[in-house]
Amino acid sequence: MTRNDSVDRFMCVLINKDLVHFRDCTICSSCTMDATEFRRRGKEMVDLIADYLENIEQRPVYPDVEPGYLRSLIPEEAPEEPETYEDVVKDIERVIMPGVTHWHSPYFYAYFPTANSFPAMLADMLSGAIGCIGFSWAASPACTELETVMMDWLGKMLKLPEDFIAGTHGQGGGVIQGTASEATLVALLAARSRAVRMILASDPQRPETGITSKLVAYSSDQAHCSVERAGMIAGVRMKKIPTEQSDKYAVQGETLRRMIKEDKAAGLIPFYFCATLGTTPSCAFDHITELGPICNAEKIWMHIDAAYAGSSFICPEFRPLLNGIEFADSFNFNPHKWLLVNFDCSTMWVRKRSDLIGAFKMDPLYLKHDHQESGLVTDYRHWQIPLGRRFRSLKMWFVFRMYGLKGLQDYIRKHVELAKEFESLVRADQRFEISADVVLGLVCFRLKGSNEVNETLLKRINNGRKIHLVPCQLSGQFVLRFAVCARTTESRHIREAWRLITQLAEEVMQELPH
Amino acid sequence: MTRNDSVDRFMCVLINKDLVHFRDCTICSSCTMDATEFRRRGKEMVDLIADYLENIEQRPVYPDVEPGYLRSLIPEEAPEEPETYEDVVKDIERVIMPGVTHWHSPYFYAYFPTANSFPAMLADMLSGAIGCIGFSWAASPACTELETVMMDWLGKMLKLPEDFIAGTHGQGGGVIQGTASEATLVALLAARSRAVRMILASDPQRPETGITSKLVAYSSDQAHCSVERAGMIAGVRMKKIPTEQSDKYAVQGETLRRMIKEDKAAGLIPFYFCATLGTTPSCAFDHITELGPICNAEKIWMHIDAAYAGSSFICPEFRPLLNGIEFADSFNFNPHKWLLVNFDCSTMWVRKRSDLIGAFKMDPLYLKHDHQESGLVTDYRHWQIPLGRRFRSLKMWFVFRMYGLKGLQDYIRKHVELAKEFESLVRADQRFEISADVVLGLVCFRLKGSNEVNETLLKRINNGRKIHLVPCQLSGQFVLRFAVCARTTESRHIREAWRLITQLAEEVMQELPH
Repeated sequence: MTRNDSVDRFMCVLINKDLVHFRDCTICSSCTMDATEFRRRGKEMVDLIADYLENIEQRPVYPDVEPGYLRSLIPEEAPEEPETYEDVVKDIERVIMPGVTHWHSPYFYAYFPTANSFPAMLADMLSGAIGCIGFSWAASPACTELETVMMDWLGKMLKLPEDFIAGTHGQGGGVIQGTASEATLVALLAARSRAVRMILASDPQRPETGITSKLVAYSSDQAHCSVERAGMIAGVRMKKIPTEQSDKYAVQGETLRRMIKEDKAAGLIPFYFCATLGTTPSCAFDHITELGPICNAEKIWMHIDAAYAGSSFICPEFRPLLNGIEFADSFNFNPHKWLLVNFDCSTMWVRKRSDLIGAFKMDPLYLKHDHQESGLVTDYRHWQIPLGRRFRSLKMWFVFRMYGLKGLQDYIRKHVELAKEFESLVRADQRFEISADVVLGLVCFRLKGSNEVNETLLKRINNGRKIHLVPCQLSGQFVLRFAVCARTTESRHIREAWRLITQLAEEVMQELPH
Repeated sequence: MTRNDSVDRFMCVLINKDLVHFRDCTICSSCTMDATEFRRRGKEMVDLIADYLENIEQRPVYPDVEPGYLRSLIPEEAPEEPETYEDVVKDIERVIMPGVTHWHSPYFYAYFPTANSFPAMLADMLSGAIGCIGFSWAASPACTELETVMMDWLGKMLKLPEDFIAGTHGQGGGVIQGTASEATLVALLAARSRAVRMILASDPQRPETGITSKLVAYSSDQAHCSVERAGMIAGVRMKKIPTEQSDKYAVQGETLRRMIKEDKAAGLIPFYFCATLGTTPSCAFDHITELGPICNAEKIWMHIDAAYAGSSFICPEFRPLLNGIEFADSFNFNPHKWLLVNFDCSTMWVRKRSDLIGAFKMDPLYLKHDHQESGLVTDYRHWQIPLGRRFRSLKMWFVFRMYGLKGLQDYIRKHVELAKEFESLVRADQRFEISADVVLGLVCFRLKGSNEVNETLLKRINNGRKIHLVPCQLSGQFVLRFAVCARTTESRHIREAWRLITQLAEEVMQELPH
């Protein structure tokens, strides 16, 4: 080994014609990468990314690989010796890209959108370099404070009630969670803790496990699967509230009122209702103006999950969909879906932050810091499931400033227009039907006819790999979901998608009895 | 407004001397950023990052700001119109950097390390651009498959028992969680679900809430606060097992055996034990070779949390610390701490993946896909709390290949050597004492004397902002934790840190009665 102790570095050497790498070598670029080498490779990666995104629509949106495809393409073990950066990079096209579902292709219409914007990517690069873990104010004050202020900015864009804004003296405020699933769970845990505290306050002798076993939570039968899962995790009963096609798949006040009455009569304790604004199957909206007062009267925590639809509330014309928010205890949506802030960035506001903190607070000595008792300080670890957290608010800051509110509103409106355009194409074709109101960027549609014919159509569509959609079930019917997803989707992509769908529908209808 | 419909674009225009921005303008670089502009700005950001990291030790490691400092530096609301990229970038130094705790400064010795390497940053850039959400195999096969294989690579580096390796036919396997807190919780939930199933199998009439209210979990009184928190979230009793200084703060088999016996006699059902390898306060190691057989005999799920220490097990000389893993049901550590893979990347393995999946499985139609029932397919959403997930295995792939196993081992060894060097400096000074065995990169030390004198010393150290440490409590004593953290820490930084500490100790001892 060649060690030069005076500069505290190793150098790589040739031994029997093989390059043998040593730690901290700065001579040979193929081992440990230093800042100089990063300047070169980072710039190459920027070009690689720009090339990928500029040409993404030439790739099949859905990959043509079988399960297990990747394992045989790479070694069974990590290398002993360092490989060169060139070796790694050339494997991106060989190993990774064939198995990628291209979520940012303008031909991707599956699930819901996930955000991808250049300002967010730049901010994420910076966040990675700063690489702080913001579990407490002291662990990186900028990380915590920018988050609080960005959550206020976004709350104001949505015209949230003053209660949800942290400001300098507010009792509420916002936090970035990783996903809506986590926000739903965090709200449920805070609600459980509040319910137990309230009951113990009036009946201090009652055993806590006796209380939790009587708790009952509610959500729509259209709610995301993560809501039911939150109930399982927290170990509480979760009841699904039935919805009807005739009510546009929205939870009605009367139904909730009846279920609460029945459950109370049976000795249960209703404590949590998760309302959905913009359900995953059909983008349905629960009637929170009706449901909110019921929850408030019954001291039930109302959490609002607007994971997808929430971004649209920055437009005055869509803001009425959020009316009723004044009755909520907590509210969440995903800027990482539709507001150009790359995943993960799921924004959650609470009316009373002490309710959240009370459910989680733990203060070991190694996490204590001088400013802890100051009213101005937020230790976000008390607001979430994980302890660690990245500097995610940088993404919000870059995106909000570089798009401006108007740019973001334009972006939402463009997607809604494109969905309306697709809806018109469907409505103009007598063989098809629209299965649910088109309110935002999601169109639920199907061939008039059996589930089988629609399942076959969807299979053909996805096997073609030119466009990608996923299904849902509405009132027992197999329905195709067409969600406008990519930032770069334009009218021509929508028209091309419709051309493909009708062409495949033609084939399917000729083959199957209609 | 200037709209050119044929190209479906808006252009920015000057109105009354103000630049008014429109959607999709490609003329003016100051609004929505396109790929061309990203090529330029991305490369500037690469240089900004390299500059930041190359010069990080010139910055005070701990920021000199008061709570609330940031709010007054930026507007109260998001801008209506887009701002220029230049405006945003110049605010990084003005707004962000003054409030950053520089975790990657070679003078940062607080908490535990968090990883920061150039290969990981490059991979994260790519991950952001691909921007897929890998909740199921179909949502991006490469994202799922690379993760499974990288977890096998890492498992083999650690010489985990074959049971934990997925391979092509294994029953176990690995998953990337966000944080160790989540891994602890996921393991606890899987254990709870398994315990309930086992009891119901022999006593089907027993009400489920009656079972969970009798469950009892255990962990060391030295375990991370997130373990206790996992119990709170899952709504189960969590008991702390007392440890002693004379036993090096390790949980002893005899203590666990006694507690289990007492709890069973009281009608409780022991079901989960979280062992810690490398505790947060002092890097203590529970005796898992003793504890494992007890757990196995009692059908208690043994989870091993080696969040910090786990990375060291890739070195043959530290691998004996993991002996006893053969008795565990699940195992977790954080490559995002000490294995050069940027946060977040918390790797978790289970012996039987069906135990995890059984605790979470939800399959709505919009998440179903054709290959779902194939044995080769992994849908990672059943393995974790959130639904969404980023393409994090790219970071592991880049880091493992560009460092090689040897490079990673060298890195671990270097940090341990630096800690030993610091330990020697402490031991050579009669005024100080070492408070716990130095096994890896953490040194727990204190001035011989009162807690007060040590608290004062720590406050002086951190107020100096040249180095940063956090404390812990061991047997009622206030102890200073010195953790070797940054990738670029060298002997000269350690010596400089010690010079500062002794200089401040001198001052403190002169002022306070010793």
